[in-house]
Amino acid sequence: MAQLGNEYLALKKLVDDHVLDYFPKLDERTKVLSDSMEYSVTAGGKRLRSVLCLSFYKMAEEGADPAFALPFAAAIEYIQTYSLIHDDLPSMDNDDYRRGKLTNHKVYGEDMALLAGDALQSLAFETMLSDADKCDDPVMKARKVKAAFEIAKGTGTSGMVQGQVADVKTVSQNCDYATLRFIDANKTGAFIKSAILAGCFLGGADQKLIDAAALYGDCIGEAFQIVDDILDIISNVEELGKNTGVDAELNKSTYPALLGLDNAKKRVGELLDTADDAIAAFDRYGIARDITKFLRDEIN
Amino acid sequence: MAQLGNEYLALKKLVDDHVLDYFPKLDERTKVLSDSMEYSVTAGGKRLRSVLCLSFYKMAEEGADPAFALPFAAAIEYIQTYSLIHDDLPSMDNDDYRRGKLTNHKVYGEDMALLAGDALQSLAFETMLSDADKCDDPVMKARKVKAAFEIAKGTGTSGMVQGQVADVKTVSQNCDYATLRFIDANKTGAFIKSAILAGCFLGGADQKLIDAAALYGDCIGEAFQIVDDILDIISNVEELGKNTGVDAELNKSTYPALLGLDNAKKRVGELLDTADDAIAAFDRYGIARDITKFLRDEIN
Repeated sequence: MAQLGNEYLALKKLVDDHVLDYFPKLDERTKVLSDSMEYSVTAGGKRLRSVLCLSFYKMAEEGADPAFALPFAAAIEYIQTYSLIHDDLPSMDNDDYRRGKLTNHKVYGEDMALLAGDALQSLAFETMLSDADKCDDPVMKARKVKAAFEIAKGTGTSGMVQGQVADVKTVSQNCDYATLRFIDANKTGAFIKSAILAGCFLGGADQKLIDAAALYGDCIGEAFQIVDDILDIISNVEELGKNTGVDAELNKSTYPALLGLDNAKKRVGELLDTADDAIAAFDRYGIARDITKFLRDEIN
Repeated sequence: MAQLGNEYLALKKLVDDHVLDYFPKLDERTKVLSDSMEYSVTAGGKRLRSVLCLSFYKMAEEGADPAFALPFAAAIEYIQTYSLIHDDLPSMDNDDYRRGKLTNHKVYGEDMALLAGDALQSLAFETMLSDADKCDDPVMKARKVKAAFEIAKGTGTSGMVQGQVADVKTVSQNCDYATLRFIDANKTGAFIKSAILAGCFLGGADQKLIDAAALYGDCIGEAFQIVDDILDIISNVEELGKNTGVDAELNKSTYPALLGLDNAKKRVGELLDTADDAIAAFDRYGIARDITKFLRDEIN
């Protein structure tokens, strides 16, 4: 099992320690709302997007204190959590468990899960806007606005939600490589990239760094998805002790099914090479190369 | 039937004409998303919140062009529409019709209605943040950030969504006056007030005007809800030709039930007097007095 490095784990701890700092204090009549939001926000996970945001912020600005970017890291986790709560609802994937815990609607009911998701999206923007509003320095305020706008774009109609729609509309259909790329690039890639770019904007990165970060984001977004598909096959093979796992997976529209397992692994290698090259534009690499190494280790 | 004035109708037309200006152009694979969003955004309604935003913007700044505030008016309508789409879902009110048209999930399915609502909330913040991001004047940028933050607060965890939660949790329970006020002040009042304050912030209103606008917003938010309850009773009485409508209504937790019909009307009068007095702080009244007059006419 591949491991993430110490810098990644330190940033993840920072997010875990502060992710509830921006929660409202509600009175008894509506405390169930913040309870249900907290239940899912603290349900675990790698905190990949928020850690990327904090790390690229540090990479863009020498001596940057990641605490400055915490409202954005928290907002990113609120959006990620809202998307998972809504994705698990009966009208979507109808999942009872996520990461070994009951899903939000199984604990709090469908109506509360719907509202907890709505509230988390709202709280994300409230948190970023509050931070931008109280900032008196016009340069820093402009950076915060640009970062929040980037996250809105990556997670909305032209990004994550569009990807969800494409996924819902093609589910149980065999789709071609271009459609699979379209779904994943929007559903997961756009948010990962926007979290990275938000970090760059907060750190005042110039256009050269922004372009490099965008390319890195595109590459690791795609690589994560292909690696996920490959790991599904490998774990099925190990679990069943034979190759039926592969056969079953190859009937679904996954990267290994469409490219072949070897070509899928080769594609991951190419993407990670491009990502590593792109990141050379920065003076500091932060966790960027930890992540490419982690992804290489996952499938080797 | 009371009528809204010409200035109200002109601002409403401005909103109706431009409410789709900030919609994304999606490709064939996901066009159903923007179709379902458009279906509900253009399904009618008074556009009360966005018209209030535009009008208070004009009231706060002499010679202000309401077109400047259109991204905020559109964003307000996106949030209002998302809240209605989600409110109509089977796990919430389970409504098949709204304003004589099939509800979003009856046309597009529950999964798409969920995603269309999510996307509209996202698009609201994307639209406001895009407008703030591209603004080069630091004073105007700061105003836009403050306005967007105000809308996030009024419609989120401490405002509209909290009100929805309180409503869901007390439904079919008799509640007392304080709880009814808590529900309505959050569910509808907070958004109305935040739309008004957003207009004031965009127009650079000073603290005296902001306080006056906040008081006006509180009063008309409450008055609208009491008037709605009174109209429900009056229309039931007219429809049934006898007073059973009143009796039926009086068993539910409504303002007339809790205060008595005459006291409810008296309370509306007091609220509208306070609203009119508050608005005297402004040099221009815009539609503010049209609205108090409209509400007086509705129940007399």
